[in-house]
Order: sequence, then C-alpha cells, then structure tokens
Amino acid sequence: MTSQSSDHGSHALPSQEPAKVTDKRLLRGARTRKIVLRQAVDVASLEGLGRISFGHLALTTGLSKAGIQTLFKTKESLQLATVEFARELFIDAVIRPASSAPRGVARLRALLDRWIVYAETPLFAGGCFRTANLAEFDSHPGPVRDALLHDQQEWHEVIAAELRCALETGEITELDVELTVFQIDALLCAANTALQAGDDNAVSKARRIIESLLVVPHS
Amino acid sequence: MTSQSSDHGSHALPSQEPAKVTDKRLLRGARTRKIVLRQAVDVASLEGLGRISFGHLALTTGLSKAGIQTLFKTKESLQLATVEFARELFIDAVIRPASSAPRGVARLRALLDRWIVYAETPLFAGGCFRTANLAEFDSHPGPVRDALLHDQQEWHEVIAAELRCALETGEITELDVELTVFQIDALLCAANTALQAGDDNAVSKARRIIESLLVVPHS
Repeated sequence: MTSQSSDHGSHALPSQEPAKVTDKRLLRGARTRKIVLRQAVDVASLEGLGRISFGHLALTTGLSKAGIQTLFKTKESLQLATVEFARELFIDAVIRPASSAPRGVARLRALLDRWIVYAETPLFAGGCFRTANLAEFDSHPGPVRDALLHDQQEWHEVIAAELRCALETGEITELDVELTVFQIDALLCAANTALQAGDDNAVSKARRIIESLLVVPHS
Repeated sequence: MTSQSSDHGSHALPSQEPAKVTDKRLLRGARTRKIVLRQAVDVASLEGLGRISFGHLALTTGLSKAGIQTLFKTKESLQLATVEFARELFIDAVIRPASSAPRGVARLRALLDRWIVYAETPLFAGGCFRTANLAEFDSHPGPVRDALLHDQQEWHEVIAAELRCALETGEITELDVELTVFQIDALLCAANTALQAGDDNAVSKARRIIESLLVVPHS
C-alpha cells in the first residue's frame, strides 16, 4: 500500500517490454478496476456518487489509494465509470433476461418483473442506483448528471419501444406513449424508495397501477 | 469566532440575571437558529442531509462553529431540526395557502398548483426537500429517516383527505384512495427530479396524468 504502485499506470509502458507482461498488467488492471467499481456502485447506491472517494475505496477494497488513482485519474472519471458499471449491471439484471419474452405487453411485464427483483434483492446495497443518484445529482449540471440522464433516457426508450409495439399489434388500447413511460418510471422510482424505507406494499401498488394502464381492447 | 461563544449556551443561566437579558439571549438564540436552519435546508436540498456539518454551516453563515454546536448539540439533532424547519416551510408554501379553496377536487388542485410553484421556484436551492433526502436516507434506518417518512405520511394524508371528500360528495367517480395517493406523490417526485435536471415538460406531464385520475361522473 505504498505510493509506488502509481508507477504501474497505463501510461508510458516501455515498448521493449514483452507482450505477455503487458497482457498480465492489463488483466490485473481490469480486475482491479472491476473490484473498485463494484465497491463504488454499492457506496453510490447507499450514500450517493458524491460520497465516493479514492481514500475510502482504498480502505474498503484493501487496494492502494495510489493504484486506484492511477486507474481513474480524477474523482469525476471515477464517478462516470461507476455510472457506466451500474448501467451494465442493470442491463444484465433487467433488460437482457427480459429480451427472451415476446415483444409488446409480454416483454413489458418481463421487464417490470425483472425490475422488481432488481429493486427487491440487493444487487446494489442501496437499491436502484439511478433513483438514488438522480435525486442527488439533478441540481448539479455536468458530465455525471448527463450520464445519469442518458441512462434514464435509455430505460425510458426500452419501455416506450414495447408500448409502441403493443399498440401496433393492437394488444392494448390507445394511450400516450410518452406520458405512460413517465408514469411507469415515476411509479417504479417511488416503489424503490418506499421499498428501501421498509414499505413492502409499494411494489404491489406500483404493479397494480401499471397493469391498469395496459388496457386490453374488447374483442 | 472563538470557542468562547460556547459559554453562552442555554444551560446554567445565573438565576439572578435580569429577565430582559435572558429574553434577549433567547431571541438571539432563536434568530441564530433560524439563520443556521435556513442555510442547512438549502445545503440538504442540494447536497443531502448527510452533507450538512457544523463547520460548513459556520463558514457559510459567518457564525461561530462553537455557537452552532451549542444550539444543536449533535449532527443528528441538527438534521432533525432541519427536517422540521423544511416541513414548516412546506406547510407555509403549499398546505396553508391551499386551505382557502373549497374541500375536495378544488383544494386538491390548489395543493397541486402550490406544489408546482414550490418545485419550480427555488424555495429550497435543490428543489423538493423530501424527494432529495428520502432517496438518500431510504437505506439508513434511524430518527432522520423516520422524520422524513413521517413528513411523507403527513403529505399523503393531506391528499387522501381531499380525495375522500371528493368521493363522498360525488365530485369524482370511484377510485382507490391509497393507490391514487401513491400515484400522485410518485408523479410529483418524478416531476421534481426532472425539473431539477432541466426538463420543463415533466410538470405538465404530471399535471395531465393527475387530472386524468380525477374523473368527473357523467350527470
């Protein structure tokens, strides 16, 4: 845990170094990165992205502060990497598993089911990463807020695509896609906050309301 | 700004001191308290209740850290006093002005109108105090979270009372009060976050959805 480990940064690797050693170093770097980011995501979901620091991450991962600093350079790039890591975990936990369901209402329900599992089981120590951090960063313009808003936009697009598909095939009756997406996400965020605060009924409330939005036409 | 000011605490005032001086001290204490809490509410709405500290508040208000510490004793009691101060500001800004509207749908609309003004104009530097801080404190059991949840419960009760009144007088058609309150608050919280992030359409989306929930019976 000395500052010497900062000498092993990604910059200025001697060109005469054997490729095998470089590969090992890259692998070690990638592994360290993952360990740090997994911890950072937990801290950020519990305490907020503003609370992550090189020093605290060094303490909780047992890695050297200098080594972490060499990997991420600035606090802002650490925050951005944390947002991206949380995004990938979200895609793996919610979006990818739902993609095997047929398009439209079935996939929308699969997305909601996966989202509820994601909020109920501690994938992140503090529940939904985006909900926790958007509420913190909404008043702070900058790259971190932009990244969080981009993630939200992407999630809204995923829901919108299935709603549009359900409309096109006549699975559901006419509705305003943009309004419904806003409504569904608002309900999920509220359910997440309530769930974190120990109110187990919130999820079933959100689910009942969302189901009532998906009105099946009379045949 | 020396630590001597901590000698002027509320404890152990000499009993032979003239009442006038004691009154002045109490007044000065109350004034200081208000200055500190107004600043604390802004910091908490922007950065979160976890981020307020005696040192930072001393710096931004120009008061002595020791004096602030004498008034509030611990960080947790400062946080609780901040939640209570924000609650009073919310009542003054939203609930009291709406109370002149007739009970039922009219008062509900007045509450929503005042809430939107409250979210749009910077009463708190970082927008809705409760939204910002519940998302931070939902994963942290303790008196501060309990106080925030109590405020939320109180706000839910205010909305529920008007919905029940509108149902009793037949102003609106049958609806599930508990579900509708959950939905209205979820939409307001989402609108607040979007508004803080620069999305001005969110408020009108929330308003349109809430209006659609208040279905007037056919005569």
